[in-house]
Amino acid sequence: MTDKPLAPRTPLTLLGAGAMGTALARAWLAAGHPVTVWNRTPARAEALAAEGATRVRTAAEAVAANRLVIACLLDDASVGESLDGADLTGRDLVNLTTSTPAQSRARAARAEARGARYLDGGIMAVPPMIGVPDSGGYVFCSGSGALFEEHRDTLTAPTGARYVGADPGFAALHDVALLSAMNGMFAGVAHAFALIRREEIAPKDFAPLLVSWLTAMAPAVHRTAEHLESGDYTSGVVSNLEMQVAGIPTLLRTAEEQGVSTELLRPYLDLMARDLAAGHGDEDGTGVIDLLARTAPAGSAEATSG
Amino acid sequence: MTDKPLAPRTPLTLLGAGAMGTALARAWLAAGHPVTVWNRTPARAEALAAEGATRVRTAAEAVAANRLVIACLLDDASVGESLDGADLTGRDLVNLTTSTPAQSRARAARAEARGARYLDGGIMAVPPMIGVPDSGGYVFCSGSGALFEEHRDTLTAPTGARYVGADPGFAALHDVALLSAMNGMFAGVAHAFALIRREEIAPKDFAPLLVSWLTAMAPAVHRTAEHLESGDYTSGVVSNLEMQVAGIPTLLRTAEEQGVSTELLRPYLDLMARDLAAGHGDEDGTGVIDLLARTAPAGSAEATSG
Repeated sequence: MTDKPLAPRTPLTLLGAGAMGTALARAWLAAGHPVTVWNRTPARAEALAAEGATRVRTAAEAVAANRLVIACLLDDASVGESLDGADLTGRDLVNLTTSTPAQSRARAARAEARGARYLDGGIMAVPPMIGVPDSGGYVFCSGSGALFEEHRDTLTAPTGARYVGADPGFAALHDVALLSAMNGMFAGVAHAFALIRREEIAPKDFAPLLVSWLTAMAPAVHRTAEHLESGDYTSGVVSNLEMQVAGIPTLLRTAEEQGVSTELLRPYLDLMARDLAAGHGDEDGTGVIDLLARTAPAGSAEATSG
Repeated sequence: MTDKPLAPRTPLTLLGAGAMGTALARAWLAAGHPVTVWNRTPARAEALAAEGATRVRTAAEAVAANRLVIACLLDDASVGESLDGADLTGRDLVNLTTSTPAQSRARAARAEARGARYLDGGIMAVPPMIGVPDSGGYVFCSGSGALFEEHRDTLTAPTGARYVGADPGFAALHDVALLSAMNGMFAGVAHAFALIRREEIAPKDFAPLLVSWLTAMAPAVHRTAEHLESGDYTSGVVSNLEMQVAGIPTLLRTAEEQGVSTELLRPYLDLMARDLAAGHGDEDGTGVIDLLARTAPAGSAEATSG
């Protein structure tokens, strides 16, 4: 720390002072950004006002205060309500509110129709990681590449950022895809702990084995990506579907022996068995991804009607 | 490599010359162990005979040939059939056949009643990893600690080994628990890839994000272990259940938008919602493990009746 004055930082408006909004505001204040904050429940913005933020009464006032406007609200509907009475002309709107890809696309179309540039963001971090250097957190960003480049320093003050494309739905899609994959992993972890729960196995002894195993197996994802790109699901297979399906009864029977519900385990095993029955025994299960695909996606239609 | 003769290695018998048995036999032959091999379909043992193994006609002959007898057969029933006519007196039986914990416990009880020491093993590797130094593969071992110590060098010639307890069911339990957790992770990965499948997102660009994210999130397993040991599921929570459940509609709606079945995603989300409804909003989902527990486990009863 020196007494040298900080270079002037981009002033910004933050809509939303929930747990994440508050953490973001603190990181921007700490980095020297003038912050104007609005929250529907005024009391929640008071703490930030005491820390140097400018609190305003309405979302329209907040939007009028700065060119860079960042929304971190409860949900997409809250974004719509907050922006209803605001003049977005010439504004750079960064929407970090949790959304679906179609919601983000519709939000981008509406913002652009009202004269704003739009960037969507999906935050891959929890509030305690915000403002912490090298926390591993980051924000997926998509939409206006020009907006992203212009405000990159500001956007990366609270945590890292990764621009994933001009399609404003891609940030949300990446966010949801990673969170969904994580839930799958945690479902597997829950089942594994349930299996050992009643045995004389200390969870703390078991946890390192589980973490090393999952970490060692995760890179198999690269082979799946290669399969999807080439369309050849047999290349580099080390444990084929026939072998994997042969092991299913042991997995299910062990769960029954240990008194553990198979509800988390069975759906994936069932899909592997369906993939094998479809004649893909020499592959390693990439075909399960195709089995998950239903009819034509509703997303694109929803986005254009928004 | 030198011309110095190898120290004499423990001779051993291998029951089973499937893909895994063959890989194991080759590793032992390469390490200088005399190997006697039996396989129900004699042709499959022929290749090994050409590589220096001694092939015998019956399982009983194979068991009679060496004190150390290793079984790597199709399933537990095959182990029973193969050992039916053999004299196990004074034998060290290492059973690497995929089994449930109860099957392993019953197998141990029967082998010990017939005069053998018993060690059970669960192989955390695929055949191409066997005999490859630092492949990351290993065998969970449980049962006779004396047998494990005495034959440690032999057992670790093909791949690593981890002794996880005197209970002969623990190797199978660890094996199944880790495989189950892996299936959960791969289910999540399949869902994630399905979400991006129809978009202009290259699977090879997406894969590294997925691998880093899963690798970064896996250590949360340690907190779950702490919760299970202390019984306090609220300590160190960074993303509480209330927040996680609030995000569920976005996960499900995104799947619908992208035309992806929610069958892999929904069971875990449903359990999180049940855990929240039970009043655990300030925890982070460790309670899901308790929800998976059904009635008293059938395993122990089955083991003692075996």
